[in-house]
Amino acid sequence: MPRERTTDELVDGVLRGNRLLLARAITQVENESENARAILSAVYGQTGGAHIVGITGAPGTGKSTLVTALVQSYRAAALSVAVVAVDPTSPYSGGALLGDRVRMRALSGDAGVFVRSMATRGSLGGLSATTSGVITLLDAAGFDRILVETVGVGQAEVEIASAAHTTVVVEAPGLGDEVQAIKAGVLEIADILVVNKADRSGADRTVRALELALHADGGAARAPRHHGRLLAPEPSSDAAPADGWEVRVLKSVAAEGAGVDDLRQRIEEHHDWLRESGEIAQRNAHRTARMLENLIHAELNRRLRKRIAATRLAEWVEAVQRRETDPYRAATVILQELV
Amino acid sequence: MPRERTTDELVDGVLRGNRLLLARAITQVENESENARAILSAVYGQTGGAHIVGITGAPGTGKSTLVTALVQSYRAAALSVAVVAVDPTSPYSGGALLGDRVRMRALSGDAGVFVRSMATRGSLGGLSATTSGVITLLDAAGFDRILVETVGVGQAEVEIASAAHTTVVVEAPGLGDEVQAIKAGVLEIADILVVNKADRSGADRTVRALELALHADGGAARAPRHHGRLLAPEPSSDAAPADGWEVRVLKSVAAEGAGVDDLRQRIEEHHDWLRESGEIAQRNAHRTARMLENLIHAELNRRLRKRIAATRLAEWVEAVQRRETDPYRAATVILQELV
Repeated sequence: MPRERTTDELVDGVLRGNRLLLARAITQVENESENARAILSAVYGQTGGAHIVGITGAPGTGKSTLVTALVQSYRAAALSVAVVAVDPTSPYSGGALLGDRVRMRALSGDAGVFVRSMATRGSLGGLSATTSGVITLLDAAGFDRILVETVGVGQAEVEIASAAHTTVVVEAPGLGDEVQAIKAGVLEIADILVVNKADRSGADRTVRALELALHADGGAARAPRHHGRLLAPEPSSDAAPADGWEVRVLKSVAAEGAGVDDLRQRIEEHHDWLRESGEIAQRNAHRTARMLENLIHAELNRRLRKRIAATRLAEWVEAVQRRETDPYRAATVILQELV
Repeated sequence: MPRERTTDELVDGVLRGNRLLLARAITQVENESENARAILSAVYGQTGGAHIVGITGAPGTGKSTLVTALVQSYRAAALSVAVVAVDPTSPYSGGALLGDRVRMRALSGDAGVFVRSMATRGSLGGLSATTSGVITLLDAAGFDRILVETVGVGQAEVEIASAAHTTVVVEAPGLGDEVQAIKAGVLEIADILVVNKADRSGADRTVRALELALHADGGAARAPRHHGRLLAPEPSSDAAPADGWEVRVLKSVAAEGAGVDDLRQRIEEHHDWLRESGEIAQRNAHRTARMLENLIHAELNRRLRKRIAATRLAEWVEAVQRRETDPYRAATVILQELV
């Protein structure tokens, strides 16, 4: 059994980029352990160096393969890369899906690459808070680029991916009309679109459909991102749609490495554009607001969990079952006792 | 402009099954308006008659077509049906995807059918709370069956679908390995599996893969559902895995109506089994616990939103940007002021 590390040892290890201690610190954050917040707070001052790239898209688009190829492309360009793969899992099993994460492991002998899969247990803001904590650690550890891969098309996945500097939405030909429709929803968060598996029939049609949707959108994709959920600041009137960035539709065949360097270059162009246009400040403000929001929610959730004894709840459930009360009245009473 | 209806009028209208007033009451619940809780509380005593069927699966499986066909099958069997279609949307646009909901409208001249699409705006428990409110209204309005269709494979979608008496997971051949992997995660919530688009090549392979996964699972699909999120009661030791229900893999070609009656019959068998085995009481207790949990969360979220002025938050964001503090310290201070 490995010796417990102190908070100071973990903080120091993360800042030195020690892989073992970084991995342990990530585990502390994932487990929401006592000292997780202290570690994050201590390393936060050293963050801001990494460029964070969200990569999202429906299942079947070959995202994981694309991410693997992208990592290789970054390594060829002498940039260090960390990958956070957020996997949807059953709320029951809690086990992360490995998919072709196995292939990612092949990369992990390289000190310039770090891969971490995260399961989506602990919903209700908990995952977002945990993911942003892991990103904080990787940023502080000095990785040049952090790729946040989300598998899935749910709102949670979209939100996690969009908490990035650059959001890449991956599509694939022939996933059916329903998928096409969903794509329309995620178009608005995309800085870059990629049609992967572009050697399949229908690839050009998919590209054209996306280009059409982008134009029909009236440039919504370039609208400011401060979409104001709970705590996000409202878009100020001077936060005009950022000019000068064109959302383009690229093509790739990740399994053969085709188009991957172009994708990386386009991501780097976005990285440069964010800095030259000053848009980076707004994206960072947005990321910070979302982070605060998620932290507050996760903490409130944790306190609530502590305060409600499961037995009491079971009594309420029984009272509702006997129709002595209804869930709406019961919730009001429970809340009065809690707050 | 239509006259505002009083809470009493809406309650009375819902209980009489008046479609117009039911639709208005649903809108009140969706908008979380002042009197929504009063309406829900007033009608709750009249619920419990409907059998609630969750239908979930990845995009591209043809769920919507299957739901449409299922509604027709129920009508042929003289049962009234309401459909709640939960659509994933961009967190930005808030607009519901209509997909082939248009086709559903063709059914809506029939007084025994009611269709409602809901967008997934207002995350963090809000959607689950709203969905269960809408189900309460439809139940009180006297529909025999309520189909809750969720598009997507995220955890939120799975959770909504699993808050049902019977959960149907829809699959399709040839959606790729990644989808297959995700399927493994949702297997545990399935009471019934359907491979739709079964006229496609590879359908039998998909059926076999699912059957294998079900068996490999060691019957996890039949484990008790009290998986204990925030407030759910822990499974009691006498809540043994419910014997007597076998999760089977059916086939359908919904676009041609093939296999749909069989699916309906299997759902009805599950309906009967739940009652004969007594398992229905446990499922209802689970549903009630989840409802309480979602209501409490939604309400806490609403209060939080009211209490935090966006301007204050913007100040915190700026302080973090200037590195005067970090999000972890800031969240702690904000929480101290809030609670």
